[in-house]
Amino acid sequence: MRRLSILGSTGSIGTTTLDLVDRFRDRFSIVGLVGGRRVELLAEQVRRFEPAIVATADDEGAEQLRALVPDFRGEIACGAAGLDRVATAEGTDLLISALVGALGLRPTLSALHAGIDVALANKEVLVVAGELVKKAAAQSGAAVHPLDSEHNAIYQALHGHNRAEVKRLILTASGGPFLHTPLRDLEAVSIEQALNHPTWKMGTKITIDSSTLMNKGLEVIEAFWFFDVPPERIDVVVHPQSIVHSMVEYIDGSVIAQLGIPDMAVPISYILGYPERLPLTHLPSLDLVRAGRLEFHAPDTGRFPCLRLAYEALRARGTAPAVLNGANEIAVASFLDGRIGYLDIPRVLESVLTDHARVDDPDLAQLLEADRWSRAAAAEKIGSGIRGSGI
Amino acid sequence: MRRLSILGSTGSIGTTTLDLVDRFRDRFSIVGLVGGRRVELLAEQVRRFEPAIVATADDEGAEQLRALVPDFRGEIACGAAGLDRVATAEGTDLLISALVGALGLRPTLSALHAGIDVALANKEVLVVAGELVKKAAAQSGAAVHPLDSEHNAIYQALHGHNRAEVKRLILTASGGPFLHTPLRDLEAVSIEQALNHPTWKMGTKITIDSSTLMNKGLEVIEAFWFFDVPPERIDVVVHPQSIVHSMVEYIDGSVIAQLGIPDMAVPISYILGYPERLPLTHLPSLDLVRAGRLEFHAPDTGRFPCLRLAYEALRARGTAPAVLNGANEIAVASFLDGRIGYLDIPRVLESVLTDHARVDDPDLAQLLEADRWSRAAAAEKIGSGIRGSGI
Repeated sequence: MRRLSILGSTGSIGTTTLDLVDRFRDRFSIVGLVGGRRVELLAEQVRRFEPAIVATADDEGAEQLRALVPDFRGEIACGAAGLDRVATAEGTDLLISALVGALGLRPTLSALHAGIDVALANKEVLVVAGELVKKAAAQSGAAVHPLDSEHNAIYQALHGHNRAEVKRLILTASGGPFLHTPLRDLEAVSIEQALNHPTWKMGTKITIDSSTLMNKGLEVIEAFWFFDVPPERIDVVVHPQSIVHSMVEYIDGSVIAQLGIPDMAVPISYILGYPERLPLTHLPSLDLVRAGRLEFHAPDTGRFPCLRLAYEALRARGTAPAVLNGANEIAVASFLDGRIGYLDIPRVLESVLTDHARVDDPDLAQLLEADRWSRAAAAEKIGSGIRGSGI
Repeated sequence: MRRLSILGSTGSIGTTTLDLVDRFRDRFSIVGLVGGRRVELLAEQVRRFEPAIVATADDEGAEQLRALVPDFRGEIACGAAGLDRVATAEGTDLLISALVGALGLRPTLSALHAGIDVALANKEVLVVAGELVKKAAAQSGAAVHPLDSEHNAIYQALHGHNRAEVKRLILTASGGPFLHTPLRDLEAVSIEQALNHPTWKMGTKITIDSSTLMNKGLEVIEAFWFFDVPPERIDVVVHPQSIVHSMVEYIDGSVIAQLGIPDMAVPISYILGYPERLPLTHLPSLDLVRAGRLEFHAPDTGRFPCLRLAYEALRARGTAPAVLNGANEIAVASFLDGRIGYLDIPRVLESVLTDHARVDDPDLAQLLEADRWSRAAAAEKIGSGIRGSGI
């Protein structure tokens, strides 16, 4: 019996994980849950999985939850301390770290310091604090497993093979809705157009990041920390069908790829059961004949400068990736609010990165300060009218 | 230092193997060579790699060889006994079994009985005598590694994973030159058309087998013996670009594939170095962007009945696969001689298989007798004018 705790149980990764736990009750049980604003869903999860501890973001959420599950005998916590208590709850074998944003950083590090293995879906954890995560895991001996489909594909393509024989990693990108949109038309794309992702159903922030290729840029940074392969040996290839989830090329020219239907249950189940695979009989087999064709294009960093900026931040290291990530959150939110245009997103990022005084080998406080600074800097640039300024 | 002997050193697999040996002199040396009719090439190989023993098919070849390498101090043998002596030569770590046809059967079995690992490119060995090969390997503890690109891809896609978790094997087929040719036009295709393979450069027999999908049918039979997966869980998908060399689907829906440029140096090097990969810096990387698209079609057993016949022979087992293979050799040779039409090939096979009195659990003598009988039966049907008979 593997005992799981989940940071972000009411999100997409969290609910898919709990569905798998439900299907394999003989293999998994739930120790702790952290839910967001969907308190009714969290209450239902508490009733169904009977965790020892649940936490919400704030007091108010905890009150609401208590009212919804009056018979619950476990602990109900809240706030940063509550998240930490769930992440390090006694008896946890594997922490699913699936919060969105920097909120998940501290509890994930706490789990690693406590020697608890982490399955990581929270992109910001490695992007902002990759070096700290690696150090914490190395010190305690805890493992960090990738949950998202691309890194999970690479994880599978590396499994059993010798990592010293890797020539390069090849991350696939769907290319988003603007794969074939000319640069001159990108300036004027609408929020609705940017949210219309061709293959995956995801939240709004990550859908915009997919359309700008920033999502892939952040994944390049994650891949560096997950697999210890330098930036010049991490390639991105646009693959609109999202069937080849990613690939590894070895020194003999062999390329090992993981393919599958676009369903997060597959990569999540791989980590939940690891090193055993779970029989997902409720899912259809991949039908390559029906898919018909798989296409591959080179990413156009002229039209999608966010990808180039991510490589630059990764090469710079230190606080640069944290600054890129923080500024991007503000820029994307401003685009979704209609305050800036689509191509202003990379303009804001480039400008903030240029202004940033990088700190090398930062500690957590310095990273969080860089994050705070980058958000303020981005907001200021947007407030002072970066729109159409041609930066 | 890994010491190799090669059955079929002057063929395509043999010369590619020796090129790799030449590139990695610090890792490999040559104990024995068996060459075919290209005696001058064999002589050059003897001078270059200084084996302890060389064998040719017959006395005449041995005489010619002796004259060409007067300074050679090793042994020159010939005939069936010579092949056996090379296959079991003292000090051999790995035998490359790459003769064409049933000729390689006895020496390959001899090597396995002697506990020598075998790298298998000789299709007929497993198709005709799969059960005997498995038994010989199990008794002596010798390994049988797949050299051809499809089974090698599956081997790589299985490496490190749990074979009990395999859902199905997916063999890719190029589809050959007649992938889109309507059935009514297949009757009249010429020898030149059939020899015009779109992606791989191979000998004439295997090129015709590729065009009829019999090559894939024989590979399905081989896959059964290599990987112990029943016929109903071995699928074939037509993939004209020949970049995805084959795939394995696991019980969680994950598909692991091996991709690469169409160069036999890649699969051969994987077995030569196994479990280490050799750095093949002389080969280009796979360029998926340049390849542009990968297509997948269902095989049409209506137009390509040889594939269906292979599945039927595999399900029947016993002497049926040997009979299919023997009859196919005669039918293909007759097509290449212009004696029968293209669609007469499957007609001959179906008719011979129907007439065959299958022997279950055959020994080697019974298999060789079935092989002999099937050739005679096919020749008789062709001689009596099966052409256009609509069998």
